[in-house]
Amino acid sequence: MADQHPVSPEGSASPAAFALRWEEPPEGPVLVLLDQTRLPAEEVDLLCADVPALVEAIRSLAVRGAPLLGIAGAYGVALAAARGFDVDEAADSLAHARPTAVNLGYGVRRAAAAYHAAVRSGAEAERAAAAALAEARALHREDAEASERMAEHGQALLHELLPAGGFRILTHCNTGSLVSGGEGTALGVVKLVHRSGQLRRLWVDETRPLLQGARLTAYEAAREGMAYTLLSDNAAGSLFSAGEVDAVVIGADRIAADGSVANKVGSYPLAVLARYHHVPFVVVAPTTTVDLDTPDGAAIEVEQRPGYEVTDITIPHVPGAGSEAGAGVPVAPLGTQAHNPAFDVTPPELVTAIVTEDGVVSPVTGDGIVELCARSRSGNGMMSI
Amino acid sequence: MADQHPVSPEGSASPAAFALRWEEPPEGPVLVLLDQTRLPAEEVDLLCADVPALVEAIRSLAVRGAPLLGIAGAYGVALAAARGFDVDEAADSLAHARPTAVNLGYGVRRAAAAYHAAVRSGAEAERAAAAALAEARALHREDAEASERMAEHGQALLHELLPAGGFRILTHCNTGSLVSGGEGTALGVVKLVHRSGQLRRLWVDETRPLLQGARLTAYEAAREGMAYTLLSDNAAGSLFSAGEVDAVVIGADRIAADGSVANKVGSYPLAVLARYHHVPFVVVAPTTTVDLDTPDGAAIEVEQRPGYEVTDITIPHVPGAGSEAGAGVPVAPLGTQAHNPAFDVTPPELVTAIVTEDGVVSPVTGDGIVELCARSRSGNGMMSI
Repeated sequence: MADQHPVSPEGSASPAAFALRWEEPPEGPVLVLLDQTRLPAEEVDLLCADVPALVEAIRSLAVRGAPLLGIAGAYGVALAAARGFDVDEAADSLAHARPTAVNLGYGVRRAAAAYHAAVRSGAEAERAAAAALAEARALHREDAEASERMAEHGQALLHELLPAGGFRILTHCNTGSLVSGGEGTALGVVKLVHRSGQLRRLWVDETRPLLQGARLTAYEAAREGMAYTLLSDNAAGSLFSAGEVDAVVIGADRIAADGSVANKVGSYPLAVLARYHHVPFVVVAPTTTVDLDTPDGAAIEVEQRPGYEVTDITIPHVPGAGSEAGAGVPVAPLGTQAHNPAFDVTPPELVTAIVTEDGVVSPVTGDGIVELCARSRSGNGMMSI
Repeated sequence: MADQHPVSPEGSASPAAFALRWEEPPEGPVLVLLDQTRLPAEEVDLLCADVPALVEAIRSLAVRGAPLLGIAGAYGVALAAARGFDVDEAADSLAHARPTAVNLGYGVRRAAAAYHAAVRSGAEAERAAAAALAEARALHREDAEASERMAEHGQALLHELLPAGGFRILTHCNTGSLVSGGEGTALGVVKLVHRSGQLRRLWVDETRPLLQGARLTAYEAAREGMAYTLLSDNAAGSLFSAGEVDAVVIGADRIAADGSVANKVGSYPLAVLARYHHVPFVVVAPTTTVDLDTPDGAAIEVEQRPGYEVTDITIPHVPGAGSEAGAGVPVAPLGTQAHNPAFDVTPPELVTAIVTEDGVVSPVTGDGIVELCARSRSGNGMMSI
C-alpha cells in the first residue's frame, strides 16, 4: 500500500475527514478528494479547484456514497462562490452530476440557500461565500456526528445482544469513511468496537459483482489495523454453520415505513442465514435513510444494473481491464443474459434492530419506525432531506 | 463462440462424448480433449498422443471433474499400451497427476488391471492393449449410462414435486458434460427437462471464486439452446423472495453416511434459502459419491484453497491476467488474508432428495443412504470405487 496520509484538518473548521477535505492554500481554496477509483492499490489525492473538476470526479466515482456526495455537493457550491464563479450555474451542474443521488441535490441546495440568504441580507461576495462554506461544514459536521452517535448506539446494542463481548462480525459492501463525512454507518460501529478492543474478527464479504468489500472495506479494515478476513460471498454460509459469526452488521440504502431494508444485493441471503442460525442481523443507517413515502418492501424499486458487471470481469485501476463501463473481459459466453439487481430487500421480521443516530428500533415494526421519525424530526430535523 | 464440433464417435465403440474422445487416425491412437481452460472463449481440441501430454492436460485443468478424470485416466493407460510404452510407469504417472482426485486412480487401476489380466492369460501386446481400451470404454459407458439414469430419475422427481411443470431451476457450479462421460449430474437432469420442453428458465449462479457457473454452465446452457440467465451468487436471494425459483438442482462432491452433502461452496446458503422459501433442494450424484466411511457432515474434511483466488482477480484465457496459479491482479489490499473453502456441507434435513443412477433417496436419512448402497452393490457394484 502507498503511504497513509494524515487526515487531520489543517487550519480549517471542517471536521476531520478521510475521503474529502477543504483546503485553502495560497493559490485559492480547493476541495481535496481521496480518489476512490485508485483504491486500494494507491492513495491518491484529487484536487478540485473548480466545479467542472468536481463534477467529473463525481461522475467517475472518484467520490461516491450517498452522504459523502451530499457533502461534496455542498463544498462544491462553496468552492464556486469562493472563486467567484456563477453559484446558480455551479449548483445546477453539481446537482445533476449523478441523476439518482438524492443526497447530492440536498447538499447543493443547502449550501446554495445559505449563499443566497447571505446575499439577500446584503452580504458582499466574500461573506456570502463564507456562508456557503459554513453550511457545507455544518452538513459535514452533522454527518460526522451522526456517524459517531450511530457507532455508540450500535456498540451498546452489540454488548446488550452479546454480553460475552469479543465479537466476530460479518459485514457486506462498504459502509465506512469512504461513503460518509465521518466514520461511516455499519463500519463505523465496527471501528468503535475495534478501538474498544472488542472486535475479535471482521469477516468481509467481497460483495460481487463490484467487489466493494474486497476493495474498500478491506482497505478501511487494513488501515484501522483490524483483524479482518476476506471471503467470497458464497463462503458466508459455512461460517454461520461453524458458529464463527456472532452478528451481521450492515448498512441500508433505503428503509421503508414498515421497516423493510433495501441494501446491497446479497444482504437478504445473509438475513436468512442469520435467522436460521439465531445470529443477530443489525442494520445501521442514518434517519435520512428512512423513507416514509415508501410503505413497504414491495414498494421499493430495485435498480437493475447492466449485465456486463456479471458477464465480464473488470479489474479496477488496470488499464484496458475494464475501468470503463462495459470494457471488461468477457467470462461468460457472448450473448449471455445476466440478472443484476443492485439491491435486495430484507423484510422487517428478519432484522434484529435498526441503529440510527437517534436511537435503536428493535423489534423492527412500522410503529417503531414512525416513533423514530417523530423523535428525529423533533431533534435535528434531518428527516427533511 | 467458435464453431461447434460434432461429437459423435467415429468408427469406435466409445460412447458419444463431448469433453473427451478416443480416436484412431493412421498416425496411431490419440485421446482428444476439449481444452476446458480455453472455454467459453474458444472450443479447441487438445490431442494427447502419449501419457506425458495427458498428465500435463490433467495438471493444467484442460480436463477436469471427478468422473471425467477417471475416464481420462483409463484411456491414458490404454494409450500407453497401444503405443507400446511401459504400462505400469504410465499408470503410476497418471494416478499421481492430481493428488486428491480419487476417481483418477480408480480409472487408471481398472484399465491397468484389465491389461495385466490379458497379459497373464497369454495375450500378445496388441490384444492386451485392446483389453485396456475395452475397459476404458466400459467405464466411459457406465458413466454415461449413470448420467442418463440420473436424468430420468431427476426429471420424474421434479414432475412429482412440481406437477405444474414449466420449471425455473437454479443451479450452482458446473455439473454437466464437462465433468462427466455423459450429460452430467444436476445439469444432466436440467438438459433432459429442457429437451422435454419443460424448462422455463435455468438460473446460473456465477459460482465465485472460480466462476464455473459463468464460464462452464453458461457455456453448456448456451450450447443446448436453453433459456438461461446468469447471476452473481448474491442475487439468488431476491430470486427466491420474488418466487422465481421452483427448485434448486445441484451436484455433490461427497455424500456422508448420514446424507450430509459436501458440494461447491455456496450450496449451503442455497439450501437454507430454499428451506426458508419452501422450495425443493435436489442433489444429483452417482452412487460413487456416497462415502460410507464418512459418518456425517462434521467428518467431511473441506479443502481450503489459496487465498489469492479471492484477493486477486484472474481472467481465464487472457495472457498475463491470471491463467497461472497466483498470477492474478490484486483487488484487495496487499497482505489481505482470505478464507477460501472449496466446499460447504449441507445437512440431510435441508436436502429434499438425493437422485442417483440407482434411484432417489427422499427423505434423506442415514437409513435411506444405507438402503441405496445395498441396492447399488447388488447391481453394478460401482460403490466399490
